Amino acid sequence: MQEQSIFTRIINGEIPCHKIYEDDQVIAILTNHPIIDGHTLVIPKKQVDQIWDLEQDDYNYLWGVSQKVALRLRTVLNVERVGVVIKGNEVPHIHIHLIPMPRATRVDFDPTPPPQIADDDNLEAVAVRLRF
Amino acid sequence: MQEQSIFTRIINGEIPCHKIYEDDQVIAILTNHPIIDGHTLVIPKKQVDQIWDLEQDDYNYLWGVSQKVALRLRTVLNVERVGVVIKGNEVPHIHIHLIPMPRATRVDFDPTPPPQIADDDNLEAVAVRLRF
Repeated sequence: MQEQSIFTRIINGEIPCHKIYEDDQVIAILTNHPIIDGHTLVIPKKQVDQIWDLEQDDYNYLWGVSQKVALRLRTVLNVERVGVVIKGNEVPHIHIHLIPMPRATRVDFDPTPPPQIADDDNLEAVAVRLRF
Repeated sequence: MQEQSIFTRIINGEIPCHKIYEDDQVIAILTNHPIIDGHTLVIPKKQVDQIWDLEQDDYNYLWGVSQKVALRLRTVLNVERVGVVIKGNEVPHIHIHLIPMPRATRVDFDPTPPPQIADDDNLEAVAVRLRF
């Protein structure tokens, strides 16, 4: 049997998270290692390693939710753009990073070292604004 | 009238490129500033700034082509994964970066300074393998 990823454990409610969106197939949560406020992960509930291996319906659905979440981030956070990163070599469970990009701000999409863990209260304060 | 982006000029044949895929709506080319061999840009022919503003059909179609190109990169280059970056603050014309990720190699998705311009012959040698 496949080992449960940290995201599956979050989806199953075993690990707390700052959820901003959920339906029967997909969840969107704030990462607790944000590059910038509002840095979100969009995750299919089905534990699949690589996005390219999704079947067409699941693939389109996941990108459809990502579009809704990105538009939500852009509007609520009033940023110029929302960027995307999929890297995936740390957790073998698809997660699409959506990264708010304020106007005239250089955001490093792949910082070394990675961002530190964020304060839960700060994350929740952002999540409350974004949740829909 | 909208100023033509560098990608529109490439699509119109005014600027040469290393094309690996083309249909009536989308083109995929090797960037000439690759992070790694096979670093590809998937670009809709319609000049739109942000992917989130595409209509659903165009959005799904673009991601569908990206999936085909990513699977092609993964197979031909024999890499473990193919990553994604959308940043878009330099050229206001949607371009999805597909970034080959060889096994056990740390690839910096957002290097500073950006990658240097690659040699045309080297790019074409990669493009020949990938073209479909």
